[in-house]
Amino acid sequence: MHSGFARTPEPPYYAVIFTSQRTEDDHGYEAMAQAMFELALQQPGCHGAESARGIDGVGITVAYFADEHSIGAWKQNARHLVAQRLGKERWYSHYELRVAKVERAYAGPEGR
Amino acid sequence: MHSGFARTPEPPYYAVIFTSQRTEDDHGYEAMAQAMFELALQQPGCHGAESARGIDGVGITVAYFADEHSIGAWKQNARHLVAQRLGKERWYSHYELRVAKVERAYAGPEGR
Repeated sequence: MHSGFARTPEPPYYAVIFTSQRTEDDHGYEAMAQAMFELALQQPGCHGAESARGIDGVGITVAYFADEHSIGAWKQNARHLVAQRLGKERWYSHYELRVAKVERAYAGPEGR
Repeated sequence: MHSGFARTPEPPYYAVIFTSQRTEDDHGYEAMAQAMFELALQQPGCHGAESARGIDGVGITVAYFADEHSIGAWKQNARHLVAQRLGKERWYSHYELRVAKVERAYAGPEGR
């Protein structure tokens, strides 16, 4: 029903916030980004992910995990390690990655 | 130098993650979104914000705050309350708002 949204449980859980600025090197990026998004969703403990990128090349992806253990497992996933390396070498001119514990959550608009 | 990124301090601090799906009602949205982004940055305790919206209408804005008190003050800001009401009535078909405590953060790619 809300296809762009993660279906997260009641807090607490974790959010991995990845903000990035793309380079102009498009070689293989879209396919890899889509593959990694789908692979993340298959990780044990992943509650879902949300992603947006504007025409200025700034993108934000937030992936939600049950706990630190599942974040660590995703970080070390073999296919993800390849993507991380290519991201650093080719695709991102800058990124910020923040790990945060979600304490409360709301949805809306109510009643629409 | 990295204009799309918030210049956050060392953790801990808070992230307010707002994921939204836009309606097709554009009336006044862009101007209000820009005004609210700039107003948030002026709030005491706001460390910055990052925002992206794709052509599918899904957007993510993450605003970073020093503490719960500054989040509460922003939520109750008079101009922001007007924007929140219009957002619920007109601009968003769905949204998810999550408040999370940032525990650790990294930036990259190193050495580029």
